[in-house]
Amino acid sequence: MSTATKRHLGRCPIAFGTDVFGDRWTLLVLRDMLLHDKRTYGEFLDSDEAIATNILAARLRHLEAEGIVEKNRDPKNRRSFIYTLTEKGLALAPIIFEIIRWSGQYIPLNKARKNLLARIETDPDALLAEIQMRARKAK
Amino acid sequence: MSTATKRHLGRCPIAFGTDVFGDRWTLLVLRDMLLHDKRTYGEFLDSDEAIATNILAARLRHLEAEGIVEKNRDPKNRRSFIYTLTEKGLALAPIIFEIIRWSGQYIPLNKARKNLLARIETDPDALLAEIQMRARKAK
Repeated sequence: MSTATKRHLGRCPIAFGTDVFGDRWTLLVLRDMLLHDKRTYGEFLDSDEAIATNILAARLRHLEAEGIVEKNRDPKNRRSFIYTLTEKGLALAPIIFEIIRWSGQYIPLNKARKNLLARIETDPDALLAEIQMRARKAK
Repeated sequence: MSTATKRHLGRCPIAFGTDVFGDRWTLLVLRDMLLHDKRTYGEFLDSDEAIATNILAARLRHLEAEGIVEKNRDPKNRRSFIYTLTEKGLALAPIIFEIIRWSGQYIPLNKARKNLLARIETDPDALLAEIQMRARKAK
């Protein structure tokens, strides 16, 4: 049982959620894993928001401790690691979808993001299934 | 146009969302407004998580600047203020609902929270309408 799970038994589900992923950088790493299929430390560093290496390392450790992310040696390069979402991590996708739906009402989106929003609006289950399949194949 | 809106024009909707509300304490204040009908500084201070006064003041100012929360003098007591959610703030409810759905899979919930989760699972639109009506009445 993860630290946050123990601390929140029988308590507020929002407080539990915010302890597990309620932080700007954690949400951006989850976005990169869920929507951009990123899996390596180098890929996470390479985003528009320019996360700092020490913050990234801390957030990945936290996500691993909470059972959201799994860290394994890359079979193609035994000196590096790949990070994949667990089932618990994949189950966060609907939260990310709702954030996109909300934001889409208040900022203009480029074409790729408009297409993503359209998929979320019309068939979120199909999109979720696709994300899950991709993540399971990566393990 | 709010600061975050300007900064994120045409950019990532998740990064925009995390700038507006992606912080543990902000999410807890939004929870208190959406689900527990809290409206005053004193009510926000009085939660299990024991938010510090300086953090609460900063988060409320931020939410006001982002157009999520409106601050008005309490008509019943002109020396104090009441905080209410704008339409933009009320539109965050589905994100909070998804967090509860996710957490409900990983921590046991008490009876009141189980009932809330059941409402989210069976008829989120009715629950949202109820929250909106209550917030509009408070203004």
